[in-house]
Amino acid sequence: MSNNKRAGVLLVVSGPSGAGKGTVCTALRKIREDLKLSISVTTRQPRNGEVDGVHYFFKTVEEFAAMRDAGEFLEWAEVYGNFYGTPISFVKKTLEEGSDMLLEIDIQGALNVKKLIPEAVLVFIVPPSIEILHKRLAARGTETPEALALRCASATAELDYMEHYDYLVINDELDRATEDVAMILASEARRVSRNTHAYKMLLEGKEL
Amino acid sequence: MSNNKRAGVLLVVSGPSGAGKGTVCTALRKIREDLKLSISVTTRQPRNGEVDGVHYFFKTVEEFAAMRDAGEFLEWAEVYGNFYGTPISFVKKTLEEGSDMLLEIDIQGALNVKKLIPEAVLVFIVPPSIEILHKRLAARGTETPEALALRCASATAELDYMEHYDYLVINDELDRATEDVAMILASEARRVSRNTHAYKMLLEGKEL
Repeated sequence: MSNNKRAGVLLVVSGPSGAGKGTVCTALRKIREDLKLSISVTTRQPRNGEVDGVHYFFKTVEEFAAMRDAGEFLEWAEVYGNFYGTPISFVKKTLEEGSDMLLEIDIQGALNVKKLIPEAVLVFIVPPSIEILHKRLAARGTETPEALALRCASATAELDYMEHYDYLVINDELDRATEDVAMILASEARRVSRNTHAYKMLLEGKEL
Repeated sequence: MSNNKRAGVLLVVSGPSGAGKGTVCTALRKIREDLKLSISVTTRQPRNGEVDGVHYFFKTVEEFAAMRDAGEFLEWAEVYGNFYGTPISFVKKTLEEGSDMLLEIDIQGALNVKKLIPEAVLVFIVPPSIEILHKRLAARGTETPEALALRCASATAELDYMEHYDYLVINDELDRATEDVAMILASEARRVSRNTHAYKMLLEGKEL
């Protein structure tokens, strides 16, 4: 399918904290180096070596607010007084160019992406059991017992969002879970809806 | 996911004649020996060694007509005076038991399956070009030029049904096409909708 220009897959990976989605995403990027990440719009000052349009899109607070009010973000957040947003236009353009993209975001963000870009593929990473989820959260060892109990309860409650996702990947073993996500990504690339170009070429009598 | 009892995937493979769907299905069954085929209902007499419920479900013409009129077939056909039908109940029961199934049927049949069992996964096998499609049909060498021209025109027209399918697999090289179909099958097994059992177990605090 080398000259088959297809639409990219927007892979959205999330799951409760402690499920290991960050580790899976890092491992996935190692075996799929072509995977694009989204470039955020930010109001913070560029640091040394940071290039506009490569590391971030740097904007003023006024420009950011205008984009936000115009609904141009898939999601946005304020962190330590700076604003960060994921611009829909950049994501859509990257997909149209045929690149697959990875978004590792929280559950509310993922559900919002699905609303704005219905062809997004939502993968929910879960631990093999709630017990293991709690053990993993405890192993971080950075919290008071009360804070830990709260995080465990919240992570357990987050499991309820599973049904709104497309795929379920059980992270019992990192390599296997990573391969599962890579497989889902490659399989989704074969969707007819992402291959309308191939479809037209074939009907026009051209070789794929 | 060994003790994760999931619903089976109903994989429906079709495509224009000359695309090589039969060859791909045969190769797929070699690497996925667990794949179940549907057992047809037939009105023809059992041959030596054929077992009811294993090779076919043997029925009288009256029984067959009653099943057909009650809408109990995914598809049915009359061949040389005998009736053959694919019983929906057997397919659904097999999927509920967690077995993945393969149906290799024509395009009209595939679209009908999707209507009756919306969770069916439809894979469209295409040749890399119409030219190659026509060459493959000609290579069979069993037809008059007129019959061949008709088959070519009909196979080309069948490409139009691609958009009603879920996945597109280009059969340029048998091994790669077969691996693509196997990948789609394994990926679809990870669908949240096929893993509601795992989902419930997790919420109930059980290990997957």
